[in-house]
Amino acid sequence: MATTKLKKIAVLCSGGDAPGMNAAIRSVIRTAAYYNIESYGVMRGYTGLISGDIVKMGPRSVSNIIDKGGTIIKTARCPEFLEERYQKKAVNNLKKKDIDGLVVIGGNGSFKGAHILSSKWKVRTVGGPGTIDNDLQGTDFTVGADTAVNTALGAIDKIRDTATSLERIYIVEVMGRDSDFIPLRVALSGGAEDVLVHDTEHKIDQMCEDIKKGRRKGKISWIIVVAEGIAGGHEVGRLIREGTGFDTRVVVLGHIQRGGSPTAYDRMLASRLGAAAIEALIAGETDKMAGIKGDDTVLVPFTVAVKPGRKQEKLDREIYKIIRIMAT
Amino acid sequence: MATTKLKKIAVLCSGGDAPGMNAAIRSVIRTAAYYNIESYGVMRGYTGLISGDIVKMGPRSVSNIIDKGGTIIKTARCPEFLEERYQKKAVNNLKKKDIDGLVVIGGNGSFKGAHILSSKWKVRTVGGPGTIDNDLQGTDFTVGADTAVNTALGAIDKIRDTATSLERIYIVEVMGRDSDFIPLRVALSGGAEDVLVHDTEHKIDQMCEDIKKGRRKGKISWIIVVAEGIAGGHEVGRLIREGTGFDTRVVVLGHIQRGGSPTAYDRMLASRLGAAAIEALIAGETDKMAGIKGDDTVLVPFTVAVKPGRKQEKLDREIYKIIRIMAT
Amino acid sequence: MATTKLKKIAVLCSGGDAPGMNAAIRSVIRTAAYYNIESYGVMRGYTGLISGDIVKMGPRSVSNIIDKGGTIIKTARCPEFLEERYQKKAVNNLKKKDIDGLVVIGGNGSFKGAHILSSKWKVRTVGGPGTIDNDLQGTDFTVGADTAVNTALGAIDKIRDTATSLERIYIVEVMGRDSDFIPLRVALSGGAEDVLVHDTEHKIDQMCEDIKKGRRKGKISWIIVVAEGIAGGHEVGRLIREGTGFDTRVVVLGHIQRGGSPTAYDRMLASRLGAAAIEALIAGETDKMAGIKGDDTVLVPFTVAVKPGRKQEKLDREIYKIIRIMAT
Amino acid sequence: MATTKLKKIAVLCSGGDAPGMNAAIRSVIRTAAYYNIESYGVMRGYTGLISGDIVKMGPRSVSNIIDKGGTIIKTARCPEFLEERYQKKAVNNLKKKDIDGLVVIGGNGSFKGAHILSSKWKVRTVGGPGTIDNDLQGTDFTVGADTAVNTALGAIDKIRDTATSLERIYIVEVMGRDSDFIPLRVALSGGAEDVLVHDTEHKIDQMCEDIKKGRRKGKISWIIVVAEGIAGGHEVGRLIREGTGFDTRVVVLGHIQRGGSPTAYDRMLASRLGAAAIEALIAGETDKMAGIKGDDTVLVPFTVAVKPGRKQEKLDREIYKIIRIMAT
Repeated sequence: MATTKLKKIAVLCSGGDAPGMNAAIRSVIRTAAYYNIESYGVMRGYTGLISGDIVKMGPRSVSNIIDKGGTIIKTARCPEFLEERYQKKAVNNLKKKDIDGLVVIGGNGSFKGAHILSSKWKVRTVGGPGTIDNDLQGTDFTVGADTAVNTALGAIDKIRDTATSLERIYIVEVMGRDSDFIPLRVALSGGAEDVLVHDTEHKIDQMCEDIKKGRRKGKISWIIVVAEGIAGGHEVGRLIREGTGFDTRVVVLGHIQRGGSPTAYDRMLASRLGAAAIEALIAGETDKMAGIKGDDTVLVPFTVAVKPGRKQEKLDREIYKIIRIMAT
Repeated sequence: MATTKLKKIAVLCSGGDAPGMNAAIRSVIRTAAYYNIESYGVMRGYTGLISGDIVKMGPRSVSNIIDKGGTIIKTARCPEFLEERYQKKAVNNLKKKDIDGLVVIGGNGSFKGAHILSSKWKVRTVGGPGTIDNDLQGTDFTVGADTAVNTALGAIDKIRDTATSLERIYIVEVMGRDSDFIPLRVALSGGAEDVLVHDTEHKIDQMCEDIKKGRRKGKISWIIVVAEGIAGGHEVGRLIREGTGFDTRVVVLGHIQRGGSPTAYDRMLASRLGAAAIEALIAGETDKMAGIKGDDTVLVPFTVAVKPGRKQEKLDREIYKIIRIMAT
Repeated sequence: MATTKLKKIAVLCSGGDAPGMNAAIRSVIRTAAYYNIESYGVMRGYTGLISGDIVKMGPRSVSNIIDKGGTIIKTARCPEFLEERYQKKAVNNLKKKDIDGLVVIGGNGSFKGAHILSSKWKVRTVGGPGTIDNDLQGTDFTVGADTAVNTALGAIDKIRDTATSLERIYIVEVMGRDSDFIPLRVALSGGAEDVLVHDTEHKIDQMCEDIKKGRRKGKISWIIVVAEGIAGGHEVGRLIREGTGFDTRVVVLGHIQRGGSPTAYDRMLASRLGAAAIEALIAGETDKMAGIKGDDTVLVPFTVAVKPGRKQEKLDREIYKIIRIMAT
Repeated sequence: MATTKLKKIAVLCSGGDAPGMNAAIRSVIRTAAYYNIESYGVMRGYTGLISGDIVKMGPRSVSNIIDKGGTIIKTARCPEFLEERYQKKAVNNLKKKDIDGLVVIGGNGSFKGAHILSSKWKVRTVGGPGTIDNDLQGTDFTVGADTAVNTALGAIDKIRDTATSLERIYIVEVMGRDSDFIPLRVALSGGAEDVLVHDTEHKIDQMCEDIKKGRRKGKISWIIVVAEGIAGGHEVGRLIREGTGFDTRVVVLGHIQRGGSPTAYDRMLASRLGAAAIEALIAGETDKMAGIKGDDTVLVPFTVAVKPGRKQEKLDREIYKIIRIMAT
């Protein structure tokens, strides 16, 4: 474990953006200033690390951004970073500026890069989980997930208004990658009649039967949430139309879910984890992500954080069960 | 012009739903009560008029709905109403309940039906413009248009967060039918770089040139608003990708734009026009829509209201010009 | 522990209202229906229990309420319920309708009544925590707290716009009773410069010194969150004005914080705890509140839930520390 | 009328801030750039004009601000500007930078200053109406008014949730100065039972009678909107409590109404008037405010714009009448 006193840190965002990244950047920069550590921002993730697009930042650079979506230092995906020659350029750029600590905010792919930097190139690196999909191990939540769920919920609430007035079947495709976090929570909190997630993908026939039975009993409108990657909202809409003979409308929420002002929870989480990341760097930690467990902040090795596999499986099953009970 | 004293009125919504329809219903029912006129609600538009699904309503039936999207008496499209035998059934259902005045809330198609009822069947009928497209003649605004623009704008604001962070081209398809009302106002207020509306449909080549030129000057993200019906957001996304070589993301807002709590303006407009419709019926008016001109409420013959053709052409041109100036 | 099979349940809300109460009612009623149990709603809390204002409800009674603030069965404070003769009337009213299970949604005071009903009168009673203050023991969160924090945050965000433009000191008084839950989380997520909570009440002098020092360094606007009950926003405004010589503006958010559409989190929590309450009643449980611990639902004796004392003290201290770090 | 070709313009905001000021600044700067005119921003209104705090701006300085409340160039009240020696300093500061056109965004007081600059000191000056109170003559709307009404409405909607659940009388004090624009529109769109505005100030006795009568008929909750400056919300609350014997709760919305992301309408208005102001300066106009009349932009002498007196009196009366009808 590195133990030299920390003098300068840099922060970068990588991968898809998530609401609350700005709050995390603000916390990183201001906590660094509090401990008399200089701060830099790396523009556009690993891309800027490679090209040397690294700018001086300070407490005033992050004024009035806690409530803003997106990230002021921008983010990007950077497949080149898997190549050693680019890693070397990145490490040299940090050395040139005497930066001895790095905070990486992002998800899965970002932490694979961060692991390379810390384990292979000995850059003291700590991560903060920033992804709407809540698919990182070792932390209860990732920054952006609560906002993304609430954003999708806002859309569902509007669709319900029109679904109830016009008597139709609405299919709403939400984001979520391999994790069912967003679709399950949106379906439960949105009062959707059903949800298509990974464990349930082959059940469209059953869904059509339910709808036909419900229609006979007088039920007139349905909202069905579909996780992207299961079948595609438009495809599900077609299958239900064919299977029931009823009209369907499809809404694909898409990138709306990545933006917007972060919720209180995401701003708090970002503020806590940004501070925890700097304090971990100061303590000489590296190759780890700062996360949340219950009321505590914890450190999790990057190699653990990026492991595949479902979190909250028991909770997901409970949520799914309640969605079905509520639809009765 | 009919002049018998009005004793009972009914209200119906027809066609696509629009935010503020509930505020209009509330105003119709409460204004009727104020003038000691009994009220009925017709469920599901002309469909309920034909089937006789007409329910007694009063001031308390419309409590706490002014802020709700959708319509508590539901709405529907009803092509059968063009057939005389169904019209006859509808008129008989009104007669059976001694209903001597009808308020129809809806758009183009709804007022064609309302014109048949008033001109051919002598049902005293006044309309209230309820459609998000603001495409009725003789009224500055229709109930729902201001809310729909603000809803689409909310989505654009979220997309801008992510567009600015990730540096991409976003294509956002908004509603609006043959009218360019929504796309032009969303593009201007959303700070979009460009907009594809009816007058501008063949300009994708020019757009690709602009983007390539902007990219050379360092510009990194674009938001382009597309009016549904021009080409389809996905089609435009494909053409721009092919024409520029840059990545595009497409968002189709769809039915989200029909729901949501109405804005202050739409609730006021709905409240004023609902009251104006009842006062017009009391005054013996029929075959007309209540609309707004400047600060005044006005009456416009249904036959005028449904005429095709652009409103606010001069304003639309000014808005388009400013969008282009702002993008420089 | 009671073990007769449950046939009919009633649900009531009591005390101050909280966003998500409707979602909880919906979950109670629909879960009961799922298990073939009849449902009743008691109007206006213990007041309606005493007067016998108890209405039949079913799955359709709770359609389209999951997103609505307030409570459709209304709530009230009912000091008379501490008198035995009123308790007897309440118990008789339940017996008359053969109601053998009761769900009470509310906070501290409500659960004291619920404890009397279950322990003294042997009414099988389970509670669901519904209060914006998150001041019940044995549950991580109470229904309404997340929404209240987000609502207050929305107001702070607007005030920051104007604070930054006009260069002033704003004092914002938020709710929270004896708990510091709301003020601490609002201050952190709102980026407030300082917060006055219970542990910090005698520090206005220090605050004035900080402001004067900041002003000398060029800082021009402050947002200071005050927990109601500490001193009163207007009083704090006066003290700071006198202590610094600078102009202050005071905003008292008040009852806005109790209303509004619940957040996704509060709707999920309400849905889970409503279902858990019915399942607990079915299992013969009584005299307990359903709560949340990590990912699990748990049962906590009413006598434990209502115990005074701080929850999350360690977390509160961490949040306070980060607020101070962020203000540097 | 001045006719020299315009080369450099400056823009300032003055007085209370209003949502949409940033959209107006953006439009001014970008329209200037479009016409190859250099732009400057004056910080803190006339204060910065006197002190020479004038910064170079360009199209990129105003990126991503169209959706932000407040004003990036800040605003202030500046009573010193009435003194000639300060005016002279201001004029010299403009001359030093060769600035030959000035856009002033603000309300009444701001335009008095602007009139002095243009008439006495021959600075080519055009104004854009930015005030939430919509109290300037010669323009249908001022930038910020639509947003302020919608913000206050959002608060009323939340209060209604709790008012309906808890059965109480809520008094909500809203902004609006001598104009009744905000209170009347908030009361109508918020479904308030009554409103206290300037023409109606001595009617609290009547209000108490209405409430007592309503309570006898079973009505249980009231929302009453009060215009600030009529009596003060707390005072009205006390009078109604004494006059009816019923409990009241008072909410004073205060400065929340000045902030927040501007509505689509305010962003459009700001964009149009910002462009119109620059085009007016180019055309050699001075001593005038750009305003809106129906679909057209117009120019109004500052001396006319600041005249006291009610606008939309007829509309105000209609709105008041409908509020009363809706409350029946």
